[in-house]
Amino acid sequence: MTTQHRHRRRDRSEVPARAGYGHLRHPFAPQGTFSEDEVAAMHDTALRVLENLGIRVLLDEARALYRAGGAIVDDSAQMVRIGREMVEAALATAPRSIRLRAADPGHEQRFEPGALLLEAGSGCPNVTDRLRGRRAGSRETYVETLRLQQSFDVIHMHGPSAEPQDVPTDLRHYALMEDQLTNCTKPLFVYARGRGQVEQSFEMIRLARNLDEAAFQDGVWATTVINSNSPRQLDVPMARGIIDFARAGQLSLITPFCLAGAMAPVTMAGALVLQHAEALAGITLAQLARPGAPVAYGGFASNVDMKSGAPAFGTPEHIRANLGSGQLARHIGLPWRSASGAASNVADAQGAQETVMALWGALLAQATVTIHAAGWLEGGLTFGYEKFIIDIEALQTVAELCRKAPADMAALAYDAIAEVEPGGHFFAAQHTMERYQTAFYAPLVADLSNHGQWRENGSLTADQRATAIWQRVLADFTPPAACEGVAERLAPYLAEGRRRGGVAPEG
Amino acid sequence: MTTQHRHRRRDRSEVPARAGYGHLRHPFAPQGTFSEDEVAAMHDTALRVLENLGIRVLLDEARALYRAGGAIVDDSAQMVRIGREMVEAALATAPRSIRLRAADPGHEQRFEPGALLLEAGSGCPNVTDRLRGRRAGSRETYVETLRLQQSFDVIHMHGPSAEPQDVPTDLRHYALMEDQLTNCTKPLFVYARGRGQVEQSFEMIRLARNLDEAAFQDGVWATTVINSNSPRQLDVPMARGIIDFARAGQLSLITPFCLAGAMAPVTMAGALVLQHAEALAGITLAQLARPGAPVAYGGFASNVDMKSGAPAFGTPEHIRANLGSGQLARHIGLPWRSASGAASNVADAQGAQETVMALWGALLAQATVTIHAAGWLEGGLTFGYEKFIIDIEALQTVAELCRKAPADMAALAYDAIAEVEPGGHFFAAQHTMERYQTAFYAPLVADLSNHGQWRENGSLTADQRATAIWQRVLADFTPPAACEGVAERLAPYLAEGRRRGGVAPEG
Repeated sequence: MTTQHRHRRRDRSEVPARAGYGHLRHPFAPQGTFSEDEVAAMHDTALRVLENLGIRVLLDEARALYRAGGAIVDDSAQMVRIGREMVEAALATAPRSIRLRAADPGHEQRFEPGALLLEAGSGCPNVTDRLRGRRAGSRETYVETLRLQQSFDVIHMHGPSAEPQDVPTDLRHYALMEDQLTNCTKPLFVYARGRGQVEQSFEMIRLARNLDEAAFQDGVWATTVINSNSPRQLDVPMARGIIDFARAGQLSLITPFCLAGAMAPVTMAGALVLQHAEALAGITLAQLARPGAPVAYGGFASNVDMKSGAPAFGTPEHIRANLGSGQLARHIGLPWRSASGAASNVADAQGAQETVMALWGALLAQATVTIHAAGWLEGGLTFGYEKFIIDIEALQTVAELCRKAPADMAALAYDAIAEVEPGGHFFAAQHTMERYQTAFYAPLVADLSNHGQWRENGSLTADQRATAIWQRVLADFTPPAACEGVAERLAPYLAEGRRRGGVAPEG
Repeated sequence: MTTQHRHRRRDRSEVPARAGYGHLRHPFAPQGTFSEDEVAAMHDTALRVLENLGIRVLLDEARALYRAGGAIVDDSAQMVRIGREMVEAALATAPRSIRLRAADPGHEQRFEPGALLLEAGSGCPNVTDRLRGRRAGSRETYVETLRLQQSFDVIHMHGPSAEPQDVPTDLRHYALMEDQLTNCTKPLFVYARGRGQVEQSFEMIRLARNLDEAAFQDGVWATTVINSNSPRQLDVPMARGIIDFARAGQLSLITPFCLAGAMAPVTMAGALVLQHAEALAGITLAQLARPGAPVAYGGFASNVDMKSGAPAFGTPEHIRANLGSGQLARHIGLPWRSASGAASNVADAQGAQETVMALWGALLAQATVTIHAAGWLEGGLTFGYEKFIIDIEALQTVAELCRKAPADMAALAYDAIAEVEPGGHFFAAQHTMERYQTAFYAPLVADLSNHGQWRENGSLTADQRATAIWQRVLADFTPPAACEGVAERLAPYLAEGRRRGGVAPEG
């Protein structure tokens, strides 16, 4: 029985299968780190920041929307002061539950409080693996990382793990969308890099998925991350993205990147006040552009290393920021995005510790989606293939905890305990024989063999073992059935777009 | 400012200091994995196991105590059946809060629900480090590991990390106690290896700490771990240990080691039923030996690898076992011990992931003490020096979360936010300058430098960096003031005991 069991998990085709992790709900009660009074004070201080100090908005169109909504706008200074009644009105119309559509209906998600969604490390300019080394992201590695995301059930939304830097920026959105649409069946991301690229990206989704405008707006087909330029600034493409996604009924995750001590106050409470003010400003803009538009709160605060200026992840401050962000999101009642990730340069013990620590912070904070949950190294400068595989183990461990363990009479095992004599063992008990094949999580990369066996097998560390796993996953990849015909449907549009030279990103 | 900050954490004398982690309370609400009804059913099933099936007790003296207490005893089969009224009586007299004494009064602890105590990886026959390799534990490494424990505030109780296998077993208890008493000032452990060794160990504590019998029994000076021989068996030294520690007013952590699928049912609910039954049997024996004796519930269930028979740690099953154990401990109202640890053969990403996952399981389960929290490799077969340092980082991260972050008006930072212009930074803000030195946790082994700098520094992984840290800690170690004169006070007793050939452990 044991050989069979081990063989089962070593079977090549088994690596990515691991079904049943596709739809998760948080298994733990949300935890906080600030008192309710303190959370209310943070919310109130953020409102004071918006109404008294204001936020600089670089896009004319956005300032006009704010002004029309009642804000006090100084166009020469590009400053917008937003009254709390405007924020309250926006929070009243922002939806609490959002349907994320997907090419495979089995991959649809509800983006709402209580849901537990996970996304791979995203936005990395570089990639690294043990075979090819650290290098700039390319279209080849962009496709590979999408396929890794697609292959594991525990990844619920797609993200741009590797930036295809070998594609010119005017044409890059074509590649970003084409590769997602032909390889992926989970909810998609679209970069907010200006109206032209966004509109073309939406059009490609409609073409690939055979959607008319009404079908495209029936739920969310595309999600973007909006990073304000902390402190208190919203640049042109981000402001445009909020407006364009809102009007098209697509989802913006409004995520200030507030590093305490750098772009935000050195206290976590202060950093969260700034984050909250900026997120509320973005949420308000989305609701001004289209009341009821899907939009989510985003928290991505941590501390900065005071020497290098590098962001820290998995630190006490990062965990505390996650907990506080969750409290603020619950305070306003919106679903929200968080992040885990690592600052480590390599997929070693530091990297694992940072990511798992940060992951638990996001879990206890009850984040709706946790981005950068697998593969993120160097604070996001590099996506690691081995790191991705190692982190998937952590995510699958969490996913298992979302299931209920049996505790019926048979599971309580009184009869099995009666059957085995004192000092004996349960290996051959009927109760064991009936269950051993599915009783335990079978590790993806962890090696439980004893020291002698481990040495015989080459004394491989986890990152060394992970190399073979991602290679196998990529070798086994076949484009999903739901992507059939997509390349053909997109081809004329792409040819025409590329012939015209594409669209410049909006600066 | 930044150079100074970095210099501060690189200062040699700073490594072990890290004060303020010495007394922790759980920061999160306890979480469960079974419903209240299921927990009640597990408790009831355990009582049925004890009253109907019974437990084999190999020690005559223990069976006599059970019989006198009302149990149905079959001496020929060595079986003891314990009625639920006996268990209830024992739970009524077992204390809920236990004072752990220490040579340094600042290291005393309350062992009670809500307290968060951490102990190093213990009971390892082998040790490993990157300089000297993997080898059998010796007296030298026993002393070194005690000094590592003593040097970090976040370790709250001592444990036998490395077994001094070069000391004959008849004399080993002398070494175990002498080295603790001369190097350590936190609550002590004593192995329950028979009445003779236990009595001599207690006598050494009295001599070293200048205690008469009344002072020795005023609170707990010694703690032991009692492992039943699952399933349903209590051997001679363990039963004797429960009796002797109870009568001397010292603490037994009654800890069945229930590996689901091996010594326990393959279902976690069933494994916990067996654990609960055995723990209740031990707790009952302690209270029969002396009502009111300090005793704690112990949970150490996990799953076994079905191929190798090796125990798994940090797996979903291990986390679930921790959560369920915490629920059962709260059901009976006792403080309890848990464990983290790793199955990994090396201090790599797997090892870090396993230990941090298991640690969070113990945290959410609100374990009173978590043993094996630093340094445990190979499921306890080896104590790793680098692993210890890496795990200390995780423990310190948790300890930071036990503190309250400031959220007063100044921390909310409205004025600082007003001071910094949109798009600016907070590096030089007055608010930052006043706080940066103490605002963030300074890592022990994590390296936050960027990729270029990290490569310039030799591309060291966390385990490689950890080597220099434990070396520095050991080089800097000086025996604490509270241990002055101890060696001299013990010398005549030890000389006499050794001259007599010591005492054989009880088999």
